[in-house]
Amino acid sequence: MLKLPGLIDPHVHVREPGQTHKEDWDTVTQAALAGGVTMILAMPNTKPPIFDEATLTLALDAAKQKTRCDYAQFLGAGPDNAEIVASLADKSAGLKMYLDSTFGELRLDDMTLWAPHFINFPKDMPIVLHSESRTMAAGILFAAIYDRPVHIAHVSLKEEILLIKAAKERGIQVTCEVCPHHLFLTSPSPNSEGIGGGQGGGRMEVRPRLATKADVEALWQNMDVIDCFATDHAPHTLAEKDSENPPPGFPGLETLLPLLLTAVDDGRLTVDDIVQKSVINPRKIFRLPEQPETWVEVDETAEYEIKAADQFSRCGWTPFEGWQVKGRVKRVFLRGKVAFEDGKVLAEKGFGQNIRY
Amino acid sequence: MLKLPGLIDPHVHVREPGQTHKEDWDTVTQAALAGGVTMILAMPNTKPPIFDEATLTLALDAAKQKTRCDYAQFLGAGPDNAEIVASLADKSAGLKMYLDSTFGELRLDDMTLWAPHFINFPKDMPIVLHSESRTMAAGILFAAIYDRPVHIAHVSLKEEILLIKAAKERGIQVTCEVCPHHLFLTSPSPNSEGIGGGQGGGRMEVRPRLATKADVEALWQNMDVIDCFATDHAPHTLAEKDSENPPPGFPGLETLLPLLLTAVDDGRLTVDDIVQKSVINPRKIFRLPEQPETWVEVDETAEYEIKAADQFSRCGWTPFEGWQVKGRVKRVFLRGKVAFEDGKVLAEKGFGQNIRY
Repeated sequence: MLKLPGLIDPHVHVREPGQTHKEDWDTVTQAALAGGVTMILAMPNTKPPIFDEATLTLALDAAKQKTRCDYAQFLGAGPDNAEIVASLADKSAGLKMYLDSTFGELRLDDMTLWAPHFINFPKDMPIVLHSESRTMAAGILFAAIYDRPVHIAHVSLKEEILLIKAAKERGIQVTCEVCPHHLFLTSPSPNSEGIGGGQGGGRMEVRPRLATKADVEALWQNMDVIDCFATDHAPHTLAEKDSENPPPGFPGLETLLPLLLTAVDDGRLTVDDIVQKSVINPRKIFRLPEQPETWVEVDETAEYEIKAADQFSRCGWTPFEGWQVKGRVKRVFLRGKVAFEDGKVLAEKGFGQNIRY
Repeated sequence: MLKLPGLIDPHVHVREPGQTHKEDWDTVTQAALAGGVTMILAMPNTKPPIFDEATLTLALDAAKQKTRCDYAQFLGAGPDNAEIVASLADKSAGLKMYLDSTFGELRLDDMTLWAPHFINFPKDMPIVLHSESRTMAAGILFAAIYDRPVHIAHVSLKEEILLIKAAKERGIQVTCEVCPHHLFLTSPSPNSEGIGGGQGGGRMEVRPRLATKADVEALWQNMDVIDCFATDHAPHTLAEKDSENPPPGFPGLETLLPLLLTAVDDGRLTVDDIVQKSVINPRKIFRLPEQPETWVEVDETAEYEIKAADQFSRCGWTPFEGWQVKGRVKRVFLRGKVAFEDGKVLAEKGFGQNIRY
């Protein structure tokens, strides 16, 4: 029996408020505990997005009622809320800036809109960037110019991981996370029938996209440059994924640890890598408190098949359907209580704590 | 009569080798002298591009036969010629990297292809970047990481000039140039009939595109951040510009000085600005020699109308057709000889010198 500290997932889309048919604070924290994750950091691109005091209260009120593991909520950077989010910083997981997408209140397509956030947001709190390729490089330049830390979400490309490595060597304050799907899946061929049994291509859709074999290999070869594992858990229902306009995103909370442990079994990773990148480093980067009497018990010899039917996430599918993995979460202790045991979530709704209060 | 040092244009598309129906080393240097420009730096995206010893020799042989003013030739960065161009650096104006276009031998679409050039090209020689918006930011990050100077070509956007200002304040080795067309023209409205009398939109096509009024104003307001004026003289024939697939680019050598002098007359610029940005700064940035006994005599009171028919460029049009300007180049001395006088080019073919030899 392997004993691990409770994992931290710094990148989770809870879908509440606004899209609770996909997921909510209850189901997402059940999925977290089932995956050995005892703390999640929630992304702000909900409906409405979390970008001021009223919307932050909206998210935290729902969370307080429903969560079964610990959490904090990110704020979203918008074109004119730099001072507002800076004033709310200590109640948040940090600031998220969407630099490659353009949607609604969190649209930041002009670089003149970036500087106020880099200037105003407290320098001891992380700014997390959704920024791919050259936009990522631009974001790192802003970190260098404004002398503050940035954390690059879901790195997927060789050019990205190599540039982060070079920037770190130069002393720029940049950290990064990589998602399991970018470590274990490559971009499907044009005529592929999809993954996870999907007939169309919708189940493959994720942002950043699945990358080439060379990109995936570069991530593995630069494991020491990767600060965190993060799921970017982004649940959509199977009906949505198989529709004509499939939204991008994969669930990931329940498959994170089994996939990583299988890589340990294959000799591609060590248990210490998991502890560093899923506990120690996220705790340091996001200034998260230790969770007392909190740990995960894993049967590292248990082999089983990943099945969406066994999952707690409301979305009802996984891109890893049918994968054989080795390493099963048996029991999770959260602050002295058994929160998960033998396939059952025992922590009650509302047991989760906002770690920023 | 105003006496100016001979101007330097650090950004000229000569079109030779390969497209001499648009321009060649003879006509382009006639246009230069008519504009008060006594030294041009030639861009490498010719046909073939100038990216190794054989192609550099091809360009310089043609130049030696035909040029009437002084010059140097840029090398183009390609995906696998970093060591070759570094070895040819002292024979070149510098290295040009096309980071936003993807064509043929000078294609650099993956950032992993950038680093070898930043590492190998001599640090006392400039690397010039065609890099717009976020790509520009990425290029400046590379300058910061590899601790070497870069020069940003044809800055056109507010977000660009403000970021260059911030990067300079942070001590990053970045310089930049702005083109007259980005200072004097704004993006046409969707239903506009075009500029310079063109019936279609082809004459408006230029890269970077003409920008908004707010962008143009930001350039004027940050004149102290602009290191150089550069024409990006990019001649195409009128037939090409008015065709169904109009190539982007404007001629500019003959309109540079009259436009700038008219801005001086309007109180928007000083003569010292022109000398700094068209002589002193490019000489320093590109490590160019002084040209002895070289100057331009201007009748700063002469008002006239810009007409393509009066120009020496082979392209046969100008986006400033019909503009009233104040300030006419009367006479140009180049190394003690009268090279241009009263509308006539007097320097002979082959009088121009490669300033790198």
